[in-house]
Amino acid sequence: MSEMVKVAVDAMGGDNAPAETVKGAVEAANENKHVKVFLVGARKCIEKELKKYEYRPQQVEVIDATEVIETAEPPVMAIRKKKDSSIVKALQLVKNGECDAFVSAGSSGAVLVGGQVIVGRLKGVERPPLAPLIPTEKGAALLIDCGANVDARPSHLVQFARMGSVYMESVMKVKKPRVAIVNIGAEEEKGNALVKETFPLLKACKDIHFIGSIEARDIPAGYADVIVCEAFVGNVILKLYEGVGGTLIKMVKTGMLASLRSKIGALLVKPALKSTLRKFDLEQYGGAPLLGLNGLVVKTHGSSKSIEIKNSVLQCVTFKEQKINDKIKEKITLGDE
Amino acid sequence: MSEMVKVAVDAMGGDNAPAETVKGAVEAANENKHVKVFLVGARKCIEKELKKYEYRPQQVEVIDATEVIETAEPPVMAIRKKKDSSIVKALQLVKNGECDAFVSAGSSGAVLVGGQVIVGRLKGVERPPLAPLIPTEKGAALLIDCGANVDARPSHLVQFARMGSVYMESVMKVKKPRVAIVNIGAEEEKGNALVKETFPLLKACKDIHFIGSIEARDIPAGYADVIVCEAFVGNVILKLYEGVGGTLIKMVKTGMLASLRSKIGALLVKPALKSTLRKFDLEQYGGAPLLGLNGLVVKTHGSSKSIEIKNSVLQCVTFKEQKINDKIKEKITLGDE
Repeated sequence: MSEMVKVAVDAMGGDNAPAETVKGAVEAANENKHVKVFLVGARKCIEKELKKYEYRPQQVEVIDATEVIETAEPPVMAIRKKKDSSIVKALQLVKNGECDAFVSAGSSGAVLVGGQVIVGRLKGVERPPLAPLIPTEKGAALLIDCGANVDARPSHLVQFARMGSVYMESVMKVKKPRVAIVNIGAEEEKGNALVKETFPLLKACKDIHFIGSIEARDIPAGYADVIVCEAFVGNVILKLYEGVGGTLIKMVKTGMLASLRSKIGALLVKPALKSTLRKFDLEQYGGAPLLGLNGLVVKTHGSSKSIEIKNSVLQCVTFKEQKINDKIKEKITLGDE
Repeated sequence: MSEMVKVAVDAMGGDNAPAETVKGAVEAANENKHVKVFLVGARKCIEKELKKYEYRPQQVEVIDATEVIETAEPPVMAIRKKKDSSIVKALQLVKNGECDAFVSAGSSGAVLVGGQVIVGRLKGVERPPLAPLIPTEKGAALLIDCGANVDARPSHLVQFARMGSVYMESVMKVKKPRVAIVNIGAEEEKGNALVKETFPLLKACKDIHFIGSIEARDIPAGYADVIVCEAFVGNVILKLYEGVGGTLIKMVKTGMLASLRSKIGALLVKPALKSTLRKFDLEQYGGAPLLGLNGLVVKTHGSSKSIEIKNSVLQCVTFKEQKINDKIKEKITLGDE
């Protein structure tokens, strides 16, 4: 591929900005010469950070933005008022076609609202879902939707299933991705009103490989590739993954330090254990794409380090190369016929 | 306490019935001479199992029931038609006051529906929630509701908060239990329609210690004692706890067996690790009570072994001793004034 992939990076977003955001963006540019990063934020701060690194200057550009949207701000208002914020300016670059994608570790609310309001939805897409990859025993599954739209309708969930299938097939190279809807039992008649209404609609979709309901217990085991749910449930799943994982790993560590005998054992076990548990690290996949927009918006964790920023930027390359948005448009349009 | 606590046990319910159900019931009777267990199910099967054990005969009675409700059966229909099933007959014993409580590892749906239809709700209780204890870093939290009522209304959630507070205070001896509502952000304005409506109602309750929203990430860390949510979300939380825990422990084991070095380490680490991880075992607490009924109904895991059946039966003693139902009635009535 010879065409450049242009990615705007929110240099001011997240707990570790601008040090880690700038570092991650530069690392991505150094790793792939077809990437150009646009670091959006306070020029002076960014330039100070940039001095620490070597890079090809034609691959890194700074776009000045004087305001910052804080996580606690009500997102709709912030997007409307802070026209010179890094988030709004970066999203404008995507809207105008100057950039292909935007990566931010900043305010989730502002990124999600801004993505919809400024970049806009693809024709036919009712609601753009936030779709992170989560680790499973067998690799990764796409959790869709995970925070963009609470109180969704059945037709939204059907679109999520379609968009998620495109993503898993084209980006993650999963053939015939297995789509399941999160439910409280395996039987078709189980569930709340939303799930009961959505189930037959998914069953009727000929363009996806729907395998039925999935109970939350079976998600980590890797029973499905595309996990469809409304955003409130998706958010609970994502955060509980993190919470239970964190608590258990903390307890394993405490257990290992309980006696001299176990301390010696811990030293022997540590390297093997570390490499196994890395497979279950939520952050290895970079950010979560907000699918169904006229461009790509990727939200990474607020506590992202340079590695996640870098992976998120590089993810935008695959997204563009694979023409995900064209495929989504096609699938949504054909699906509706 | 000299009064006997009479507990009906569904001898036919669960994957390991009747062997483990009978064993657990007998163990409970042997451990506490103020317990009388009524083993409900196929008399011949039960008597065959009973022959394996020693017990005081006045503490164990068999009640014949010729039918069994299977897990896959639609619960409303099963309760209506199978009048001679172990579940229906046991619930009748509670309704008639012949037993104080009922413990079952059988069909969740049938136990929940039967509890409401046959035993009936306490005056003032709109919906009886299923409320299991889940392990946290700091001990245990009550997850309420976890499967009894999907598509709940705000007034139901307020009652769940009150009933859960009574339980944690009286059974688990937590002073001023911290009540939180599961949400997708910490701020008051976040959430779906149900949470947004419920939040101010909980905030206005003077008889509970409401601490606001809890994100799923913070549940395992033990930030709250009573975790209020509607049943669909509660079920997802409970089952994901199990799923992520199971997968991680499996991965820890695999990691430990990766090399000779780590295998030796594993031998040294194992005893300490085992005792630490036991604290995070969902099943240590016995079954989940269905609160707010004219009697006590406890649902234990379908795969329960005798230890869970025993713990569930013994839990009924505390429940009766602490007069939980009187306290719930009082709290619900006063709260509504």
